[in-house]
Amino acid sequence: MFSERIERLTGSLIREILSAAQRPEVISFAGGLPAPQCLPALDFSALPPGLAQYGTTEGEPALREAVAAHARDSLGIDCQAEQVLVLSGSQQAIDLISKLFIDPGTPVLTEGPTYLAALQSFNLFGARITAVPQEDGALSPAALAEALARAQPRFSYLIPSFQNPSGACYTEANRRALAEVLDHAGAPVIEDDPYRALSYDGEAPAPLVSHLKKAPWVYCGSFSKTLAPGLRVGFLIASPDLYPYLVKIKQSTDLHTNRPGQWQVLQLLQSPDFPAHLDRLRAVYRAGRDAMQAALERHFADLADWEVPKGGLFFWLTLRTRQDTRVLMQRALAHDVAFMPGEPFYPVPEEGLGHLRLNFSHASAERIEEGIARLAQIIRNA
Amino acid sequence: MFSERIERLTGSLIREILSAAQRPEVISFAGGLPAPQCLPALDFSALPPGLAQYGTTEGEPALREAVAAHARDSLGIDCQAEQVLVLSGSQQAIDLISKLFIDPGTPVLTEGPTYLAALQSFNLFGARITAVPQEDGALSPAALAEALARAQPRFSYLIPSFQNPSGACYTEANRRALAEVLDHAGAPVIEDDPYRALSYDGEAPAPLVSHLKKAPWVYCGSFSKTLAPGLRVGFLIASPDLYPYLVKIKQSTDLHTNRPGQWQVLQLLQSPDFPAHLDRLRAVYRAGRDAMQAALERHFADLADWEVPKGGLFFWLTLRTRQDTRVLMQRALAHDVAFMPGEPFYPVPEEGLGHLRLNFSHASAERIEEGIARLAQIIRNA
Repeated sequence: MFSERIERLTGSLIREILSAAQRPEVISFAGGLPAPQCLPALDFSALPPGLAQYGTTEGEPALREAVAAHARDSLGIDCQAEQVLVLSGSQQAIDLISKLFIDPGTPVLTEGPTYLAALQSFNLFGARITAVPQEDGALSPAALAEALARAQPRFSYLIPSFQNPSGACYTEANRRALAEVLDHAGAPVIEDDPYRALSYDGEAPAPLVSHLKKAPWVYCGSFSKTLAPGLRVGFLIASPDLYPYLVKIKQSTDLHTNRPGQWQVLQLLQSPDFPAHLDRLRAVYRAGRDAMQAALERHFADLADWEVPKGGLFFWLTLRTRQDTRVLMQRALAHDVAFMPGEPFYPVPEEGLGHLRLNFSHASAERIEEGIARLAQIIRNA
Repeated sequence: MFSERIERLTGSLIREILSAAQRPEVISFAGGLPAPQCLPALDFSALPPGLAQYGTTEGEPALREAVAAHARDSLGIDCQAEQVLVLSGSQQAIDLISKLFIDPGTPVLTEGPTYLAALQSFNLFGARITAVPQEDGALSPAALAEALARAQPRFSYLIPSFQNPSGACYTEANRRALAEVLDHAGAPVIEDDPYRALSYDGEAPAPLVSHLKKAPWVYCGSFSKTLAPGLRVGFLIASPDLYPYLVKIKQSTDLHTNRPGQWQVLQLLQSPDFPAHLDRLRAVYRAGRDAMQAALERHFADLADWEVPKGGLFFWLTLRTRQDTRVLMQRALAHDVAFMPGEPFYPVPEEGLGHLRLNFSHASAERIEEGIARLAQIIRNA
């Protein structure tokens, strides 16, 4: 009755966790929601009336210009507005890329762990995924080269800055070395970079794609972490050899991105308050991170190992006693605390036992302490 | 380098025509744009601040309730809000349905002609499309039964009300007879119904899916023709056996639909002015239709045959001298008049030679007269 890909359609686990975590009594570290007090006020009062009409698939010209200028001037990405495609949220980049590249059996390379909704989409389209393990907050160029040679992936999907879920942020030297390896292999490089602005101990190095000399590339960016996810506006910038295909696929997917949302994003980006807004956001999330770090030191020192993330939204714990955290999660939910099990962040979940992803951007410091204490007790009792 | 489906990626022709038609000197009958004076004023002044946050994949509860109530009370579709999925425009329904059903080689049934962007998406995913020809503004139940038995499609995609491109609106008796045939075959029925409210000579009969007793179904609706396409908000209602799959696919596609747009649509739908707004819209488009009918009678009486559409946005002409209208269109553009060639509305374009789709909702009456006269002259000279 259905297409063959529907056998690979997942999403229940995450939906169940997030749904269960919505009960107000649950202390949730499961999602990746911005803190409500960090959401900017939306102001549509000066919205031009023409935006009620159909727009172009590529996106509003002024927003495309602003995105390209920022990428050129602040990120070192050599690009023009003509290479910017405004998206209905950056999740859409993953859908468009899946359509562009993946047939059943197509080899794809990712980090291990990696963003689970990317894995879900790549799997849905039938990818055969090879994951290169992250080691000490970096990706080994030699391991990457070996995996590229062995798997011959049609593209590589990487999250070099404050990765979801690991929090890893690759050094500039690491990025340069990886770019050289990727250039040598020649397959397209997809860099997903939604967390860049959420840096708490200094800025992330320039995007990996800025170091590429030869390989085709797509750089994916989000406004959901810094502005307002409810607007569903994101973007990609692509090398000229890939861009026209992505536009046509976007057109057949949803014609174009909502125009009031695009306009609102541009107003907020160009507001004189934007730098201060980012500073406030970073201060709130830094405090959340520090509160969680303090709570983890109190309750998890003998239970798990972790690095303090320098940005992003998550701690990534490796339990000392290897166990299936999907089972643990059911027990935690019964005690009104939620987290994200680590297994779904690996192409082969069973190879990723014993990790927890903990979000620190949404709960208050008091709830963080209470939730971490409760979670440690549940693990001790397990 | 790319997936196999990219060999089937189309869209250039339409993009070229619409792009060329944007030159102000071009009289364009090519697109399907609402008239600017029919677009409602967008008013976000009472937007609740919480809508900046992530939302649910299914959509805003109040909008889902309103859509379900309208479908139940005004359209005779037996459904609940739990069956409503809010979409990023109703084009997205076609993408989700393609993902749900189509593998390379999957048989799919449509009308001939049918909506070209549906054909593009079904083709992209690899469908093998069987088109049942429309005859005298109806679909023959016997021809449908024969095609269903022969092609064994995984689903049927139909536009029974003021079809794009043909303008046909099936009678209630025709719908009942088709529903019986479709129930007998048992394969899912997709009814696309964006033009229903644009009726100029009485309402369209109840949707075809309201007559189904057994077959799974999806009913796709749009707010782009009656409210504001720039908001990119549409919806589908699905039978309970299909709904959960569509939600999960939507989640992996773009997480959820933009929330300010959903809120705005609900405000406009519930505004006391909405019925009067629809009346004004119908009056404007009825006048456009009548102006085009008068111009066609003056200039095309010996060149083509057509039916006066009772709704929707298009005239559908059949030229008496069968010719490739894609070639004609190039000549027309050189004379600053644009239309949509008929060939791309057929699964096999060469089987659909000699049709023109003419939009009457966007140009003024004077421009309609001038453009139709010019177009007739071009055809005479050809």
